[in-house]
Formats: sequence, structure tokens, C-alpha cells
Amino acid sequence: MLLKRLVSNFTYSLSFSSSSTPRLLEIGDVLKQSRKFSDLDILEYSRLSHDSNPLHFDSKFARNAGFEDRLVHGMLIASLFPRIIASHFPGAVYVSQSLQFKLPVYIGEEIIGKVQAVNLRENKKRFIAKFSTKCFKNGELLVIDGEAMAILSTLTREQGQIME
Amino acid sequence: MLLKRLVSNFTYSLSFSSSSTPRLLEIGDVLKQSRKFSDLDILEYSRLSHDSNPLHFDSKFARNAGFEDRLVHGMLIASLFPRIIASHFPGAVYVSQSLQFKLPVYIGEEIIGKVQAVNLRENKKRFIAKFSTKCFKNGELLVIDGEAMAILSTLTREQGQIME
Repeated sequence: MLLKRLVSNFTYSLSFSSSSTPRLLEIGDVLKQSRKFSDLDILEYSRLSHDSNPLHFDSKFARNAGFEDRLVHGMLIASLFPRIIASHFPGAVYVSQSLQFKLPVYIGEEIIGKVQAVNLRENKKRFIAKFSTKCFKNGELLVIDGEAMAILSTLTREQGQIME
Repeated sequence: MLLKRLVSNFTYSLSFSSSSTPRLLEIGDVLKQSRKFSDLDILEYSRLSHDSNPLHFDSKFARNAGFEDRLVHGMLIASLFPRIIASHFPGAVYVSQSLQFKLPVYIGEEIIGKVQAVNLRENKKRFIAKFSTKCFKNGELLVIDGEAMAILSTLTREQGQIME
């Protein structure tokens, strides 16, 4: 049993290190990163964005509005998308982003951001990439849905924090 | 001349304080706020969002990519929209936001966020508001264009920082 787990881990390590070799982005490729937002993240983002919405500060207010507790700012969660894209393509220039906020996100929940290449077009030696951008919690509960377009100078993926 | 300026200031104060009386949001109403993003804002946002894009850190890299200097993060600029909406409607729940990034924004540039009500619909004693959301620099240069939807518990506007 232990041996099986060791072999399994070894296989995982091998497949992970193989992703550090240069690889070109292709349609269908998925880039993922996860994050839990802390109470401090919420406070710092509120201060930085000057957002005074009591849904982020006041548990009682948030519960009266029908939520379980204070909410993580949707735009802070959505910052996962440019972070994921830039970690694989440093220098990526954001062109557009659409965001539908489907479910509330609370402090400490594990959020997985998932960016999938859905279209790639070459233009003047640069690449215009269209991505499907989704965030999930508790496995496969969709919390943010949308699309992003970015200009990439190359399709060569840097390693970033690849989860698959 | 001084008297004229004093009278002018007084008129401004009067018109400003008159906006503190409760007023219902109507289609066509515009809510505005301005902001300059500092070097510290960029650093703090990069740290908070874990965004490692060198376009925000490295002036030389940004110039080589065709920009005048390091860029303010688009998603940080876009945080003006929920801030403006929440400052007039505390407890507003964001439903969606679309963002087209039209022009780069540099540190220290004055950005005006402009949110205009374009549709209002009542649903179960709450209101679904659709807003046109735009950011401008140097007067009327459009830097971000898009739309947002939010659920408001009331159409009564709190004072916020109204510019018109």
C-alpha cells in the first residue's frame, strides 16, 4: 500500500517536472491555481479599493441580506484570472474580461481558478488568446463564470503553478 | 474676484448639500468618483492578488512591450465600479461586470469612474440595476468600457461622493 503510494507520488513528480519543459499553449489547455481568501485579504482589499460595502465588513448585515457571513469581494476573486494568465505568460496584456458572479464566496473557502484556452489567433507576430475563465468552490460549484482576452507575445508556457 | 469665488464656492456647497436629501435612482443618473493610483497601490495590489506580471513592476520591460511605463492593473482600476455603486447603495450585490481595457493607465494619472443607470427592474421587492461602467483619463479618453448588473435593496441613493 505504502509502496503503491510512493510509486504514485513518484509518477506525479515525474509528470509535474515534465511540464517545466517549454510547451506551446494549445486550444483546450487548462491552467489552474487555487487560493483561500483570508480575513486580512478582505480588509486589505477594502482599504486598497476604497470599497465600503458592509457585506464585506459586517457579518450581521451580510446575514440579514441572506448570506451565511461576510463576502469576499467578487473583483478580488476575479483577480485569480490575470494572475493565472500572467504566471504562464509574463507580459500578457489584458484586453477584456467578463464576469458573472454566480455564488457567494466566504472567508477561508478554497477557490480554484480555471482558465482554458478557447481560441488563439496570430496577429503581427503576437497572439490574441481567448480564455474561458471560471472559479469553483467545494470541488465543482461554479462561483464565477466568464471569458477573458489577452495579447501574448509567445505561446510558450512558463511553468507557473500548473495543477494539471 | 475673491467675492465671486466665495459666492461660487457657496453655490457649490449648497448644490452639494442638497444632494444629501434622499433621492431615488433613475435611468440616466450618473455616479462618478475619481482616483489616482500610486506606486504603493500597485505594489500592494500585486502582493494581494499574487500577480507577478512584469508590466506592473519593471519599467524597462513595459517600455520594451510598447508602453510609456509600468501599467496600473486593469482589475484594480475596475474596482472603482463596485466602489462607486456600493458608496451610493451599501449592501449592493454584484451580479456581473464586463470590462474592455481600451488604453493603458500609468501611475499618477487621474482616472474618473463613471457609472450610469441604464435599466432598472423590480423583482421580489428588490431592484436589478444595469449600469454602463466607464473609466476615463485626461478628461474624456476612454480607458475601460463595460457594463455591470447589481441587486439593490432600495433605489434611494446615499450621498457617496457625487461629482454631478
